[in-house]
Amino acid sequence: MEKRNRVFIATSLDGYIADKNGSLDWLFSIPNPDQIDMGYEPFMSVTDAIVMGRVTFETVCGFDCPWPYSKPVFVLSGTLKSIPDEYKDKVELVNGSIPELVNMINSKGYHRLYIDGGTTIQSFLKEDLIDDMIITTIPILLGGGSSLFGDLVSPLNFEFVSSKVYLDKVPQICYTRKRD
Amino acid sequence: MEKRNRVFIATSLDGYIADKNGSLDWLFSIPNPDQIDMGYEPFMSVTDAIVMGRVTFETVCGFDCPWPYSKPVFVLSGTLKSIPDEYKDKVELVNGSIPELVNMINSKGYHRLYIDGGTTIQSFLKEDLIDDMIITTIPILLGGGSSLFGDLVSPLNFEFVSSKVYLDKVPQICYTRKRD
Repeated sequence: MEKRNRVFIATSLDGYIADKNGSLDWLFSIPNPDQIDMGYEPFMSVTDAIVMGRVTFETVCGFDCPWPYSKPVFVLSGTLKSIPDEYKDKVELVNGSIPELVNMINSKGYHRLYIDGGTTIQSFLKEDLIDDMIITTIPILLGGGSSLFGDLVSPLNFEFVSSKVYLDKVPQICYTRKRD
Repeated sequence: MEKRNRVFIATSLDGYIADKNGSLDWLFSIPNPDQIDMGYEPFMSVTDAIVMGRVTFETVCGFDCPWPYSKPVFVLSGTLKSIPDEYKDKVELVNGSIPELVNMINSKGYHRLYIDGGTTIQSFLKEDLIDDMIITTIPILLGGGSSLFGDLVSPLNFEFVSSKVYLDKVPQICYTRKRD
């Protein structure tokens, strides 16, 4: 099966994934009475495993809901010493270089990876190891916060694949890496 | 006629309007054999005047083409002392506060303003004086450069209006300010 590292994330119009206070409340500023998932379940159905950083892991742990993932989760952290007992059967703590990490996860049979969290996505992009990005834009200017994208040594070309608009209010665009 | 301050601009996927070297070459990275204007002429046809900063003015002056604007241009700068002779019949040098500037331009009968250039757009947004934004996204991560958006004291909500895809490769989304 083809190996793909994919991003599925929502940003503000100015490219932030959390506001100045680290809050995600603005993500829910668009009325969504039927709780449509904006493509999340179809995306997860073609995901073998999830790679996220410590901040995203701790954010998810803080959600007032059951553990939301049915797929293996790898938490990438250089500072976290261990995973709390209640999550030990759900997540694996990993660190080290991104290419080695991807090889290790691929060798376990997980080929289609969901890469989540700003720092982790930026680390993958620095290694040119992101293949697809599905970016949902919430039409708000936050004016500061945690950026989805970071510095790169060289530009990376992507290609437009498709676009949708959810709830008549939220555009979502799929891009794929264009490697020459 | 309704007063509108509008942005019509292209950014990279990571929100830059110029790369790390100040270059705009990446804007032309998508093959465009028929030189389609991606909505620029229709936009200009409903524009009464243009407001831009010094950097944008000097960039346009440096283009190897005749002066591209048929509408009055106001160059907003606190540092530029005078306009070079060859542009004196085309542009007016202005400075001062953004609300006063808008009032002055409106009082001349120009109500639909095209606000251009990163610093100028950011100054207008800080005063909540942008009504519409048409943002064309070139699918490239530049990894650094001049940002379209800047810091804001408070978030600003916008509303999705419409989207198009040019050349099957370049998404363009129109947003309008949502004032409660």
